[in-house]
Amino acid sequence: GVLGSGDFARSLAVRLVCSGFKVVVGSRNPKRKASLFPAAAEVTFQAEAVKKADVIFVAIFREHYSTLCDLADVLAGKILVDVSNNTEINHHKESNAEYLASLFPACTVVKGFNVISAWTLQSGARDGNKQVLICSNNQEAKRTIAEIAQVMGFTPVDMGCMSSACEIENIPLRLLPAWKIPIFLALGLFLCFFTYNLIRQVIHPYIREQKNKLYKIPIEVVNTTLPCVSYVMLSLVYLPGVLAACSQLYYGTKYRRFPDWLDQWLQHRKQIGLLSFLCAALHAVYSLCLPMRRSHRYLLIDTAVKQAVEKKMTIWVEEEVWRMEIYISVGIIALGLLSLLAITSLPSIANSLNWREFSFIQ
Amino acid sequence: GVLGSGDFARSLAVRLVCSGFKVVVGSRNPKRKASLFPAAAEVTFQAEAVKKADVIFVAIFREHYSTLCDLADVLAGKILVDVSNNTEINHHKESNAEYLASLFPACTVVKGFNVISAWTLQSGARDGNKQVLICSNNQEAKRTIAEIAQVMGFTPVDMGCMSSACEIENIPLRLLPAWKIPIFLALGLFLCFFTYNLIRQVIHPYIREQKNKLYKIPIEVVNTTLPCVSYVMLSLVYLPGVLAACSQLYYGTKYRRFPDWLDQWLQHRKQIGLLSFLCAALHAVYSLCLPMRRSHRYLLIDTAVKQAVEKKMTIWVEEEVWRMEIYISVGIIALGLLSLLAITSLPSIANSLNWREFSFIQ
Amino acid sequence: GVLGSGDFARSLAVRLVCSGFKVVVGSRNPKRKASLFPAAAEVTFQAEAVKKADVIFVAIFREHYSTLCDLADVLAGKILVDVSNNTEINHHKESNAEYLASLFPACTVVKGFNVISAWTLQSGARDGNKQVLICSNNQEAKRTIAEIAQVMGFTPVDMGCMSSACEIENIPLRLLPAWKIPIFLALGLFLCFFTYNLIRQVIHPYIREQKNKLYKIPIEVVNTTLPCVSYVMLSLVYLPGVLAACSQLYYGTKYRRFPDWLDQWLQHRKQIGLLSFLCAALHAVYSLCLPMRRSHRYLLIDTAVKQAVEKKMTIWVEEEVWRMEIYISVGIIALGLLSLLAITSLPSIANSLNWREFSFIQ
Repeated sequence: GVLGSGDFARSLAVRLVCSGFKVVVGSRNPKRKASLFPAAAEVTFQAEAVKKADVIFVAIFREHYSTLCDLADVLAGKILVDVSNNTEINHHKESNAEYLASLFPACTVVKGFNVISAWTLQSGARDGNKQVLICSNNQEAKRTIAEIAQVMGFTPVDMGCMSSACEIENIPLRLLPAWKIPIFLALGLFLCFFTYNLIRQVIHPYIREQKNKLYKIPIEVVNTTLPCVSYVMLSLVYLPGVLAACSQLYYGTKYRRFPDWLDQWLQHRKQIGLLSFLCAALHAVYSLCLPMRRSHRYLLIDTAVKQAVEKKMTIWVEEEVWRMEIYISVGIIALGLLSLLAITSLPSIANSLNWREFSFIQ
Repeated sequence: GVLGSGDFARSLAVRLVCSGFKVVVGSRNPKRKASLFPAAAEVTFQAEAVKKADVIFVAIFREHYSTLCDLADVLAGKILVDVSNNTEINHHKESNAEYLASLFPACTVVKGFNVISAWTLQSGARDGNKQVLICSNNQEAKRTIAEIAQVMGFTPVDMGCMSSACEIENIPLRLLPAWKIPIFLALGLFLCFFTYNLIRQVIHPYIREQKNKLYKIPIEVVNTTLPCVSYVMLSLVYLPGVLAACSQLYYGTKYRRFPDWLDQWLQHRKQIGLLSFLCAALHAVYSLCLPMRRSHRYLLIDTAVKQAVEKKMTIWVEEEVWRMEIYISVGIIALGLLSLLAITSLPSIANSLNWREFSFIQ
Repeated sequence: GVLGSGDFARSLAVRLVCSGFKVVVGSRNPKRKASLFPAAAEVTFQAEAVKKADVIFVAIFREHYSTLCDLADVLAGKILVDVSNNTEINHHKESNAEYLASLFPACTVVKGFNVISAWTLQSGARDGNKQVLICSNNQEAKRTIAEIAQVMGFTPVDMGCMSSACEIENIPLRLLPAWKIPIFLALGLFLCFFTYNLIRQVIHPYIREQKNKLYKIPIEVVNTTLPCVSYVMLSLVYLPGVLAACSQLYYGTKYRRFPDWLDQWLQHRKQIGLLSFLCAALHAVYSLCLPMRRSHRYLLIDTAVKQAVEKKMTIWVEEEVWRMEIYISVGIIALGLLSLLAITSLPSIANSLNWREFSFIQ
């Protein structure tokens, strides 16, 4: 049974019908809404729909849960699946599923399917491993819903008791939480190093020698800033591991929890590493663009003209030649190794490596 | 039971035996063929094999289905799994599975396993999420086959009634259907812009000033063409969304189907976007290659020589310097953002993002 | 039931409790160890734990298996799951699981879960398709454990009889076995071509003309070596397919096994191809870096000065210009095509292509 006639209710009904279930839809306006649902689904009044179904998907907004109270008697003993989402993280004190359970104490409430979008429900059968997170206080009901999810082509994941409902409801609302701190860290580092390099390469020559080097800001200053950020970020990837090992050695046990800040840090290593790789890659691209610049061309021609006028035939400086050759070679190798690390952090590659291989590459 | 002794029949028998099923193979020449099958599989005459099995995989060509008609009596009441493929899309009027069902009305026919190759059957146990698309008019039989597929290590996907058989049979024959229109579109745009740039950069100077600039064709003309194509393609990614929103606002409802051309367009957005990224990436590579060219070197030396002979000591043009610096910076940032979009379109990354994160990145 | 109190035993208990199973942990020191396990798991003496459980995970080292012999009576008839790993490949003559089975002939032994790390057990519920390889001589027991693995959120893969236990135990110890031969091959080829290019570009001019060209070693010599390696590797990808086809034509059958060396070669094609792509990509990066070098700049200025002093106004050589333009264009196209091959070898992309599409791209 499906209660509701919104987008999600409709997509759910379509998918359930396609997966071979008998579907009955409860609506306050069955006649007007029937055309929205697939022909194989029976659209009727809410009370009738509830009577006919054992498992009922409640696809209506939390605000309207109380309108179902008239149906409390017919709902008793049935499994209610709460598929709702919030619009804000921790909007209400208790999760929608717990609120539903408190309204209908005679029902078994299961939270699930909220992480699936209406669009995935309609089209996603072939898309592979879309997970449905499920939680409930009743093991039986949880298993029933898990089986339905599996038949529908999803991968059910048991998230434990109803107290996880709040966490599950927050999942579709989270916005790259693991990236926030690393990105602010990278931006902060970039600003510091950028200011330093700006002073050194542009402001200082201007004050001392009145030379206008402003044209260096968009490329050269950025290009000397990027590898500094990359280096510091890379060291921040490996530092917490060392700190953790020290802490374990100091306390003589590996069962003591790390302090919160270290734990957080350890969990953000992958994101910090990827940002470090991003800075290194950008540094490579910026460096490769250097000879394309007009300023590079003008400086080159200027030098050549000066030489020609002074009739100096050669300006070869062996040391500078070697410094640049080695700098470029080592840079390419370092970027290659970082690329390898970045590729192995792709989920589909990481899943195909065992622990020994992964730590070997790291 | 497996009927047939081709590659697919053999691989199927191997995999079924490995997954712990009792397998009996029906062949017209059991003695000669027995050596091809694993020892644990019993190879016998077709009639006997059919008698012993409840589920029978029909691994023979459509053309030979009629040779099974003698077995109609023993086959009655059994589940027949049609695993056949065609060599051309929509080769026959009705799908192979429907044809089999019409030959044996007393059997339950299930379509499935045709999207799996013989090679995957033998080696793919550890390869993860290979999907088996299944359809049948009989829910019971479908579920039985789905369970067998699951035990064999595949992910069964329910595709509904027998009328989907035709669609399932066409899947192994499709050849990147979603890419055809976008690729022709990109080629068309490329040709138009290439002709325009050829006229502007090569033909026009030749006619007006008799200058031979043919050497510009392979790199410079292509390099000015690519970003034009990329821009137009990128705008074609976001335009249909705007048109769809306008159409919804105009009709005042989101339940009205879009016209077919708009629907098609909306579905090709990902491919168009990836081609736009490809053009942008090629433009970056071409641009980086510019200073490597001989022509670039000769022009540079020519300018330097001219300057030296005329004793002009400096040729710094502030405006041109700045234009190039800003052009390169903005180009790098734009390519970086497009790369981010391209990376999130990888299936394994896209699956790990929720809807809010995905639309934030877009 | 879980026997043992190490990291793995604890993580296993946590996950089993989270998945809704009743867990009883057997320890020799239940009081001291109880605090390590989740509250919902009952921690008691080994004998008692074994009595209460039907399925027992043996999470202790192989060396301590014999300490369980006292429990042989209570263990009789139960399913023992061997989750142990070795520290070396083929360390013992028989696999741990077979050893356990020989100690407790009255029990049914199933090998499994050893490819999962303690960390994945605790955190991996949402990580998707982690596979659990299972083998046993008893189909019933194998299916029970497969169901438990599925409820825990893993993908069970049936690996057949107990004789596969050895193979399963070696999986967490393997270290990129498919990459060893291709990497040594690439290194060998690199050394050969590097030596040849070193002699040609550095040693020969030194001996003949006493010119010091040592600065060419880190970039120019490497850069001429890389495409040679890439070409040879690419040809080694397509050669074995041709040899295999010839062998099949010669023997007139496709059922004859290929000789071992050809079989090995055919299986390493993907790795050889990826290394070929790596060399080609490095060649591209090195080539793009050429104009960034000091030596390039000095040579350019030298030429310009020489020209200016001799008052030669132009040095345009049409043939060299065209050679370079065409060389760069073809290089970019070749790298683009190789990139396409490399992208389609990503597991998540390859899984979404059918056989016809994959071979079309190849």
